[in-house]
Amino acid sequence: MCEGQKPLKVAVLGCGSVGSQVVRLLTEQAGDLAARVGTRVELAGVAVRRIDAPREVDVPEGLLTTDAAGLVSRDDVDLVIEVIGGIEPARSLILSALEHGASVVTANKALLAEDGPTLFEAAEKAGRDLYYEAAVAGAIPILRPLRESLAGDKVTRVLGIVNGTTNFILDKMDSSGAGFAEALEEAQELGYAEADPTADVEGFDAAAKAAILASLAFHSRVTAADVHREGISEVTAADVQSAREMNSVVKLLAIAELRPGPDGDAVSVRVHPAMIPRSHPLASVREAYNAVFVESEAAGQLMFYGPGAGGAPTASAVLGDLVTVARNHLAGTRGPGESAYADRAVLPMGETRTRYHVAIDVDDRAGVLASVAQAFAEHDVSIQTVRQEGRGDDAQLVVVSHEATDAQLSATVEHLRGMDIVREVTSVMRVEGDTE
Amino acid sequence: MCEGQKPLKVAVLGCGSVGSQVVRLLTEQAGDLAARVGTRVELAGVAVRRIDAPREVDVPEGLLTTDAAGLVSRDDVDLVIEVIGGIEPARSLILSALEHGASVVTANKALLAEDGPTLFEAAEKAGRDLYYEAAVAGAIPILRPLRESLAGDKVTRVLGIVNGTTNFILDKMDSSGAGFAEALEEAQELGYAEADPTADVEGFDAAAKAAILASLAFHSRVTAADVHREGISEVTAADVQSAREMNSVVKLLAIAELRPGPDGDAVSVRVHPAMIPRSHPLASVREAYNAVFVESEAAGQLMFYGPGAGGAPTASAVLGDLVTVARNHLAGTRGPGESAYADRAVLPMGETRTRYHVAIDVDDRAGVLASVAQAFAEHDVSIQTVRQEGRGDDAQLVVVSHEATDAQLSATVEHLRGMDIVREVTSVMRVEGDTE
Repeated sequence: MCEGQKPLKVAVLGCGSVGSQVVRLLTEQAGDLAARVGTRVELAGVAVRRIDAPREVDVPEGLLTTDAAGLVSRDDVDLVIEVIGGIEPARSLILSALEHGASVVTANKALLAEDGPTLFEAAEKAGRDLYYEAAVAGAIPILRPLRESLAGDKVTRVLGIVNGTTNFILDKMDSSGAGFAEALEEAQELGYAEADPTADVEGFDAAAKAAILASLAFHSRVTAADVHREGISEVTAADVQSAREMNSVVKLLAIAELRPGPDGDAVSVRVHPAMIPRSHPLASVREAYNAVFVESEAAGQLMFYGPGAGGAPTASAVLGDLVTVARNHLAGTRGPGESAYADRAVLPMGETRTRYHVAIDVDDRAGVLASVAQAFAEHDVSIQTVRQEGRGDDAQLVVVSHEATDAQLSATVEHLRGMDIVREVTSVMRVEGDTE
Repeated sequence: MCEGQKPLKVAVLGCGSVGSQVVRLLTEQAGDLAARVGTRVELAGVAVRRIDAPREVDVPEGLLTTDAAGLVSRDDVDLVIEVIGGIEPARSLILSALEHGASVVTANKALLAEDGPTLFEAAEKAGRDLYYEAAVAGAIPILRPLRESLAGDKVTRVLGIVNGTTNFILDKMDSSGAGFAEALEEAQELGYAEADPTADVEGFDAAAKAAILASLAFHSRVTAADVHREGISEVTAADVQSAREMNSVVKLLAIAELRPGPDGDAVSVRVHPAMIPRSHPLASVREAYNAVFVESEAAGQLMFYGPGAGGAPTASAVLGDLVTVARNHLAGTRGPGESAYADRAVLPMGETRTRYHVAIDVDDRAGVLASVAQAFAEHDVSIQTVRQEGRGDDAQLVVVSHEATDAQLSATVEHLRGMDIVREVTSVMRVEGDTE
C-alpha cells in the first residue's frame, strides 16, 4: 500500500524517559506505523543536550545532534516531536518547526498552559497540526475525546485526578493513616515523587493540565494564571480521617466547570484537595493512576482512567498523535485547530460556589451548636449536616455546608476561628463529586 | 467565521429514542455546532415509518418523510445519520447515501458486525467517511481512542462490559442474591430489559460489539460469526455466591485478545460470563453502566466508563462523529478508513487459553481430592487453588485452574461430571481479569 509514497521524516526533540520510548517505538513498530499512516515514518534526527549522555535506547548512529534549532528547520523534516518540556527553548523550537512547514506533536503541558494561543496561532498560520494528547494524563485519551468525541455535546464539568504523585501520597495517607511528610517520603523512595516535589505537591502540574482541559471543554482560552491553585502539603492525617468518617476520601482535583456568571455561563477552574464520596468513580483511583471524570448534557457521566505518567505510556499518546498528524500531513489537510469561539470569562475563586466540610474543636457547653450555626447564618451559608462528637475536652462539631460562594465560606471559617467557644478549627476542606 | 460558507445538509434516518435526541440536539446546539464545524448544519429531512406516529421531538414541518431511499439520494444531502438499526433497509440506505456522495454516521452495531467490510469498501470507493462511535458502548468514546489515540501502540487485550441490560441483571444478582429470573423481571419493570430480552441476555448484542472492537483493536476483519458467544441465562445464584466467596464478581464480558496462534498472533474473540476479582476496575461498574478496559504494550491499562445506551447519550456519540465527518466533508478529505492490514486469524474457542472456576459437590470420604486432582491432571490442566468446604452431605470442592485450552478445560468438567464421587458440578465459570 505504501509503494512509491515518499517516507515521512520525523525529528525528536529530547531523549529522556519519554523521548527514548518514542524512539524505541518508532523503530520497533515501524511496520505497523507504516501501514496505519500510509507510508514509512523515518527518524530524521534526535536532538539532545549531550551526545554522550547515557540513555535508555540506542539511537542509530549519526542521528543524534545537539543542534535542535538546525534540526527543526531542515527542509526534509515533516514532523517534529517535542518532549524536552519547559518553556524555552521548547517554544522557540516549536514555532520554528511550524514556520518551516513541519507538523508538531508535543507533551509540553507547562508551555501549552502558559502560552498555548501563540502556538495555536502559529499552527493555524502555517496550515499545520499541533497535537498534544500526552500533555494531560499521560496515556489516557482525554483531549481527543473532549475535542472530537464530545464535539456535538455540551460539557458542563470536568473533574480530574491528573497528578500521579499527589494521588499516590493521598492514597497512602488514606490506606495507612500516615501524615503528609511520611507519605511524601515513601513516594520519593519509590520514584513517584521528585527530590524537589514542589511542582507536584503544590498543584502547579495539575493547574497546567486544568487550564488545558478547561480550554478544550469550554472552547475558551484559559491559561495557568487563570487557575486557582492549592496543593496538598497542608492536608493532614486529621483531614483524611475526617473524610473517612464521612465515607469520603481526599483527592487533589483539577476542576473545570461551567457556572452562571454575570454575562452568561462562565468558567470556574481550580486545583485543590477535596473530599469526594467513596461511591464516586474517582474515589477508587489508587496509587499513581490518573482519571478524568466528564459530565456533559447529553452523554451524562463519563470517566477515562489509566497511567498518567511514565515513559512508555506517554510515548503511546505521542505516537497516537503522530499517526494522525502524519496522515493529515500526507493528505495535505489538518485536524481541528484551536476552538475558542465561546470566549467565556473565568470566574474568580471567591465567586465560585463550593461546599465546605469544617471540623471544629469546641467547648462542651450548652449553646455551642447554636452559636456555630449562627456564625454560618451570618455569612448566608446554609448548613447541610452537623455531627457532634465526643464530650468535654474532646467535643467536636463537624459541619458540611450547602453551596455558597467560596468567599462566603472562607469568611465563615475566619469567623469561627475568632470565636471564644471554638478552640481550634481542625479541618477545612471543600466537598465535591456529589452526584445527586 | 462561517460567513459565505454554504451550510451542510443532514438527513436523519429513524426518529426513535436516538433519532429524536439527534434531531433535538441538532436544533438546540445549532450555534455551537456551526462554530465547531465551520458552517451551519441544517436538517434536510427525517425519514420515519409513519408520519403521524407520536415522537419525543417536534420535527419542523415538512421535514418528515416516509421515503428514506429518496431522502438519501437527494443531491443536496451532504451527511446521513442512520439510526434505524437492523440489517435492512439500513444497509441499502447507507450504501445508497455513500454512492450519492454523502458521508455517513451510524449507530448500527448489528449491521457493522455482520457486514462491515461491504460498507467500508463502499465508503472507500466513494471517498466518503463512515463513522460509527455510537455502535459500541453508547456515549463512551471508545472506537475513536482505539482507532486514533492508540494508533501508535500495540493493543493486546480489550475486556468490555458493553451490554447494560446484562450488567444490571448481574449487579442485581450480586447485590441482592436474587436468581436470574427475578433479576430479569426487575430489569424489565425498570425498562432496562425488553419484553423479549434474548438479544441482550444471550449475548448477541455484546457479540456484535465484540466483533467491532476486535476489528479495530487488531486491524483485522472480525465479524459476529467469529465471536464465541454464551449468554447469562444459565448463571445461577450459586455461581454469583461462589464468585463472592472468591472476592470476585460475575460480569458478562466481551473479550478480544491477541494470543499466539499457529501463524503468529491470532485473535481470540468471545462473549461469556466470567468471574473477575473485585479489585479489578471493571468489577465496580454498577447497574446499566458500560466500561471498556484496554491493555496495550506501551500505554498499559486504560479504562473508559459511561452510559452504554439511552437516547441522549447515544445521540452525543452520533453528533461527535457528525462534527468530524462534517469538517472532513467541508475540507474535501476523510478520516481513517478501515484498517485490516494485519489480517489476523481468529482462534477457535477450543484453542483459546482460559482459566476455569469449578465448584463440585462431592462424597465426603478419603481420597476425593486426590481423584479430582487426577481428573484435572489427565487433561493436562494444572490447578491453581483448591478449597474444601463443609463435611458430609455438604462437602464441596472449589477448584480454580491455571490457564489451559478451553477444550481441555471443558473436557475436564465433562470428566468430573461422570465420576462416582462427584454428586454434582454446581458451578462452572471462566476466570478473567487477573492483572498479575
